[in-house]
Amino acid sequence: MEAISKELLAGNRRALARAITVVEDGGEEASALVRALYKHSGKAHIIGVTGSPGVGKSTLVDALISECRKEDLKVAVLAVDPSSPFTGGAILGDRIRMQGHTLDKKVFIRSMANRGHQGGVSLGTYDAVRMLEASGYDVIIIETVGVGQSELAIAKTADTTILVLMPGSGDDIQAIKSGIMEIGDIFVVNKGDLPGANKSASEIVASLELNKFTNDWRPPVIVTVAETSQGLPELWQGAKDHRKFLQDSGELTRRREQRIEAELAEIVADLARRNLKDAMKSSGDIRKVLKEIVALEVDPHSAADTLIAKLFVGPS
Amino acid sequence: MEAISKELLAGNRRALARAITVVEDGGEEASALVRALYKHSGKAHIIGVTGSPGVGKSTLVDALISECRKEDLKVAVLAVDPSSPFTGGAILGDRIRMQGHTLDKKVFIRSMANRGHQGGVSLGTYDAVRMLEASGYDVIIIETVGVGQSELAIAKTADTTILVLMPGSGDDIQAIKSGIMEIGDIFVVNKGDLPGANKSASEIVASLELNKFTNDWRPPVIVTVAETSQGLPELWQGAKDHRKFLQDSGELTRRREQRIEAELAEIVADLARRNLKDAMKSSGDIRKVLKEIVALEVDPHSAADTLIAKLFVGPS
Repeated sequence: MEAISKELLAGNRRALARAITVVEDGGEEASALVRALYKHSGKAHIIGVTGSPGVGKSTLVDALISECRKEDLKVAVLAVDPSSPFTGGAILGDRIRMQGHTLDKKVFIRSMANRGHQGGVSLGTYDAVRMLEASGYDVIIIETVGVGQSELAIAKTADTTILVLMPGSGDDIQAIKSGIMEIGDIFVVNKGDLPGANKSASEIVASLELNKFTNDWRPPVIVTVAETSQGLPELWQGAKDHRKFLQDSGELTRRREQRIEAELAEIVADLARRNLKDAMKSSGDIRKVLKEIVALEVDPHSAADTLIAKLFVGPS
Repeated sequence: MEAISKELLAGNRRALARAITVVEDGGEEASALVRALYKHSGKAHIIGVTGSPGVGKSTLVDALISECRKEDLKVAVLAVDPSSPFTGGAILGDRIRMQGHTLDKKVFIRSMANRGHQGGVSLGTYDAVRMLEASGYDVIIIETVGVGQSELAIAKTADTTILVLMPGSGDDIQAIKSGIMEIGDIFVVNKGDLPGANKSASEIVASLELNKFTNDWRPPVIVTVAETSQGLPELWQGAKDHRKFLQDSGELTRRREQRIEAELAEIVADLARRNLKDAMKSSGDIRKVLKEIVALEVDPHSAADTLIAKLFVGPS
């Protein structure tokens, strides 16, 4: 791990790729890497891009990379799919669209899937962001495939969350109804050349008027055509404005505290799971409890109360 | 909770609905209900139905209910959506299709979503199944919306998992490639009136030949047209045969042990999360750790190691 850390800090892409694989897998090796590199993290602007399938997130991200590159910023994309073996193909297809940047040494694109890490894909994502930061990336875009609960959790990893909608899909209405609006720091109506784009944008603006904001940031609503980069300079400026707002208002620290709190809960939960798994392998007593539960002699909740005391008293 | 338990055991539907809401929410009340009712669980045939959106799962489940009702069995359906505020609408639409059974007092249909229960939707599903069993349901069908990781986890809650595919979607090939075949105890090629149904079925049969089976069950591949109930008697017979196989071979107990083991891990993880959350509220020390992490003075993994020792030593 020490060699990888050193090369990663020096900007070596292969070491970076290897490190992300390690943190995706979780466990002791992942923890060791994070311990070594944590103090080099925390500097990038982390941008989450989320929205339903088909709204053009990947093309938008591609265009956003170009905006960052105009300022010679190092940009990384983590395309996160918290679900499914079945959608794996779709993600790969999306990645191919970003080929325009594959020869650019200051762009790094990586798909992350759930590699069986029990803690889900979020823990791996937190740590992958740290690896990218330690490797000198200025902007890290986390693109999620859908807008499910786990995608929302991942979006919260970001400093700035961009919620992407398209005209006429009804997503805007559903987003307004479902309260998903609250996670957006910036709203994009992509495919702005389709009929109804301005109407969708106005509806979003109107619904935002009704929101109670907990701070002084008013989310901009930006109409884009990602394929021709229309609206992209405005989007990138909006992202930079938001980042400046976060820093000036102290909101950045508050958000990072919330994020770390959520992460700690997941790490602790993951440790608990792993402790139990190890104990199951080595302890006849604990396997006996399992049989008693199946035989309906004791219920799982009572059993868990007893187990948790046994698991954590003693060596940490 | 005691009144609810009593009425639920007597078959009262309103008490059942209330109990499922309680276990969905998790926490102490949920644990209390499970403790009270656990010994009345474990008797139903639990059938998981999974597959990509659009293959006709809901119509198939509807037709399967009819088969069970021919034998006067009490049937419950849990339609589980582990994801998304955005797909909530779709689920409701699906439910409406099952209206044919809404007046039948021996059919109970319920959508379950992730109601913010930190442990995800799986813990609630395990316990909802128990509530249904205690209330006298003979067959419990767990229908999942997609085939993501969480859906697969939920499918594993079942005794018998039915994997639904349709002709020409390419799903069969993807399923074969992704190793998802392993979770199927019965394969259904639905929409069997579309071209290529028999070809899809043959491909699945061929790929099953290549599998190494860990036991003596050979998954049948059944072509159905759910809308006209074609192939449904064969499907229901297949499910009953599988259940008999599980019982006769001792596999039922083995599966339930695996399931309880997975559940215990989730309960323990959930307790760990909740302990941490409570401690965050009440302990200045722990909030101080949070600030140190944000300030990059200590990394989250090292902090978690220290915290977990503090959290669990002492009162369980």
